[in-house]
Amino acid sequence: MTVSFTCNEIAEAIGADLVGDGTTLITSIASIDTAGDGSITFVSSPKYVDALKSTNASAVLVTPALVDDTAATRLVMDNPYLGYARLTHLWVSHPSMQRAPTIHGTASIADSAIVADSVQIGANAVIDADAVIGAAAVIGAGAYIGCGTVIGDGTSVHPNATIMHGCKVGSACEIHSAAVIGADGFGFAPGEQGWEKIQQLGAVVIGDRVSIGACTTIDRGALENTVISDGVILDNHIQVAHNVHIGDNTAIAGCTGIAGSTVIGANCKIGGAVSIVGHISICDDVLITANSFVNRSVTKPGSYSSGFPLEPSDQWRKNAVRLHKLDELSRKVGRQVGKLKS
Amino acid sequence: MTVSFTCNEIAEAIGADLVGDGTTLITSIASIDTAGDGSITFVSSPKYVDALKSTNASAVLVTPALVDDTAATRLVMDNPYLGYARLTHLWVSHPSMQRAPTIHGTASIADSAIVADSVQIGANAVIDADAVIGAAAVIGAGAYIGCGTVIGDGTSVHPNATIMHGCKVGSACEIHSAAVIGADGFGFAPGEQGWEKIQQLGAVVIGDRVSIGACTTIDRGALENTVISDGVILDNHIQVAHNVHIGDNTAIAGCTGIAGSTVIGANCKIGGAVSIVGHISICDDVLITANSFVNRSVTKPGSYSSGFPLEPSDQWRKNAVRLHKLDELSRKVGRQVGKLKS
Amino acid sequence: MTVSFTCNEIAEAIGADLVGDGTTLITSIASIDTAGDGSITFVSSPKYVDALKSTNASAVLVTPALVDDTAATRLVMDNPYLGYARLTHLWVSHPSMQRAPTIHGTASIADSAIVADSVQIGANAVIDADAVIGAAAVIGAGAYIGCGTVIGDGTSVHPNATIMHGCKVGSACEIHSAAVIGADGFGFAPGEQGWEKIQQLGAVVIGDRVSIGACTTIDRGALENTVISDGVILDNHIQVAHNVHIGDNTAIAGCTGIAGSTVIGANCKIGGAVSIVGHISICDDVLITANSFVNRSVTKPGSYSSGFPLEPSDQWRKNAVRLHKLDELSRKVGRQVGKLKS
Repeated sequence: MTVSFTCNEIAEAIGADLVGDGTTLITSIASIDTAGDGSITFVSSPKYVDALKSTNASAVLVTPALVDDTAATRLVMDNPYLGYARLTHLWVSHPSMQRAPTIHGTASIADSAIVADSVQIGANAVIDADAVIGAAAVIGAGAYIGCGTVIGDGTSVHPNATIMHGCKVGSACEIHSAAVIGADGFGFAPGEQGWEKIQQLGAVVIGDRVSIGACTTIDRGALENTVISDGVILDNHIQVAHNVHIGDNTAIAGCTGIAGSTVIGANCKIGGAVSIVGHISICDDVLITANSFVNRSVTKPGSYSSGFPLEPSDQWRKNAVRLHKLDELSRKVGRQVGKLKS
Repeated sequence: MTVSFTCNEIAEAIGADLVGDGTTLITSIASIDTAGDGSITFVSSPKYVDALKSTNASAVLVTPALVDDTAATRLVMDNPYLGYARLTHLWVSHPSMQRAPTIHGTASIADSAIVADSVQIGANAVIDADAVIGAAAVIGAGAYIGCGTVIGDGTSVHPNATIMHGCKVGSACEIHSAAVIGADGFGFAPGEQGWEKIQQLGAVVIGDRVSIGACTTIDRGALENTVISDGVILDNHIQVAHNVHIGDNTAIAGCTGIAGSTVIGANCKIGGAVSIVGHISICDDVLITANSFVNRSVTKPGSYSSGFPLEPSDQWRKNAVRLHKLDELSRKVGRQVGKLKS
Repeated sequence: MTVSFTCNEIAEAIGADLVGDGTTLITSIASIDTAGDGSITFVSSPKYVDALKSTNASAVLVTPALVDDTAATRLVMDNPYLGYARLTHLWVSHPSMQRAPTIHGTASIADSAIVADSVQIGANAVIDADAVIGAAAVIGAGAYIGCGTVIGDGTSVHPNATIMHGCKVGSACEIHSAAVIGADGFGFAPGEQGWEKIQQLGAVVIGDRVSIGACTTIDRGALENTVISDGVILDNHIQVAHNVHIGDNTAIAGCTGIAGSTVIGANCKIGGAVSIVGHISICDDVLITANSFVNRSVTKPGSYSSGFPLEPSDQWRKNAVRLHKLDELSRKVGRQVGKLKS
């Protein structure tokens, strides 16, 4: 099964203007360096103009400014990177990549569950009591949908993902494998015989067009809900603790952890391996670079960072020792400044 | 199905003294700001006394000192937060929230497994050879219990959790989804053709009343066991390497990693995203704040920290460059001090 | 079922020279301190010579230099630690530890899948369309093998692991539970209505003798493949983003994250909880210590570090405040040096 499209078909599908031979047949998308006969590639930045001139691609997505820099068939649009995104959808929507809507015979679906038409439910998936599965949703093999949980139209839950009871996932979402939505928040009260569990009575509510990565966990709220708003994209291995709120279209990279009750605004970009303490707020439009330690609220849009960057181990050992005496060093310098002034 | 209790029933269940109308009907638990008619809330701290005075809650858990600060029905006890914890149990123990003990028809249970009465085993769960499932245990859909593993009475293993062979989980534990107990420790010897695996012949032994979060992994020991003691609570996304021991009632927040053979004492509180190196000891009653790097043993109870806190990226870039020269800076200051003294 | 071997059998199996009574019966492997009658232990380093002299082990793996320091039966080889690794394999290869190759009746295997002889497929495992399972492979209970994915000979996929479509895993690999191979890379283009997903058209290609830990995720490439080379060992909770390449025999400890398109050389050793930014290169033979932040390419073999080590919280609070003014402090000292010189 080979996926192939003419440049005419591609131009129409992604909304680009065609310059050159529209009948050119495209069988793969490739990066500009590896593209060959039958490939389409894209150039978003003028710094690739030399690569554009020498590419072997049969077609190129380019901005109007670069339209004369290649002999390949051109698909012209203001944002070729967005064009590339749309192109990839064309690929996976090809009939050879599609599976018919079916419910596998080994899936276990509770009698009280409500399953819409044209869903696809994989082998050994489990849909528990009173769950609701929306139209054209895809529930992967071995995935678990808990009691009363609602999965919106067109949402994909990948194999072995787990969504606990009483949660709500919007439409057109994607939840990757081994993600866990709606596990109990980490709530315990100290008692005389040790920790006493606080049952987590809230749930997780996820908006539309949300993407949740593999092994990402979003805990249910203690009393109210944990909320992930429309258009949020979460990478793999993210921990979202109970009662966190994440605003529209915020993007968070892998291995980041967000402690309980923290509120993150809309349109933020948070890098990988960031740790964010609980009970703080981050306003809209904040960028936090990778590996940062967010130990306080951020009230002004902008870019924030922290972290000790890499150096040779010998050098690090010396600097790290000094770090423990930085306050002392600063005081010493302060006293010297005083002496020099006096 | 509505959960409802009278204040009389609640007072008796959680061991509080009642002041006011014991017939007041309660249908929800809420935070003090959002509580309305039919809600019960709690106040643990005098700083919420104003909120207490203005709350719309129908009932409030309060300390004896605050008993006169509200017109709502009062449930009086020394530790209202603990009362709240117990209240949440009352909620989930309500008949409308309970499932009858059943073994789902699609669960796969080995002939040699021993399954006690009144267990609940979900769809497509797998109980492998010689496993033992204690009374009133709950094994969620798609969970896997390995050969010879013992699950104690009243323990819940949530959907899609994995417990490998030969492990022991005590009673009244809770293991959340996608947790993996008893995977092989990371043991390899360098050989001539590359790494040679060291089979991990130990297991994982977990005490009673232990809580293990979603996507948390606890590896089996190399020769002896990895040990999690009674009352330990582990949040999500924690990595516990082989041969680690964690003492009674220690609490660890999400995304923390503990390398091999490290021993952590009892009653410690370890924050989120902490990384702890291998082969060290942390004594009892140690608090480690979030995002710390524990690169040495801790032999004295107390609070410990590390980490570079957040700042604007421009400022960070300048400071980070200087960090690489901190040793040099310290030496320079030392020489100046010498000069000024001479 | 007791595992037991004579020292003669052990010597032959692991390629050691025997000194002493070859008929000594061994029933367990133990560390030198806990070894007793019937145990075998090993000493790799002269610093354990005192322990060696006083051990109660029935047999000891030793280097030629230590052969006279014990009365136990000796198995002599240059690398006793490697001998220990091989010994553990002897243990798990004992007939009492083996399971017969079988395909469980509840496993779901697509008609178009190709499954070799002598495989072992667990309960409720799912082998999707066109997947290929090599000879003597083991697919654990509840594991998912996606459409067209190829699993090499002798590879073990543990319970509840997920391998998505179109991936290739070599021979003699081990993939632990809740690992996710081939989830979508985190690729989105900013559009007018929010993020537009870039479908990930590459796959994951894994070489031979690769070990992948529990809850470790390896994302599929955007256009080309994510590549894990022969002999790589990855611990638990590692995130490998799309288009990363990891070279032969590189070892990575738990909780480390590698962002997209980064290339890591061969024979590197990367500690736990390291965060590595995207689009950089790390050359062969690089050691990175635990908790480091790798924010730039590394072009020279050697040892690298970063990170703020632990200190008492009071001291940390003071030092952390000063860290924000390190650039200012450095400038101040520079000016003083100028004054002192003038």
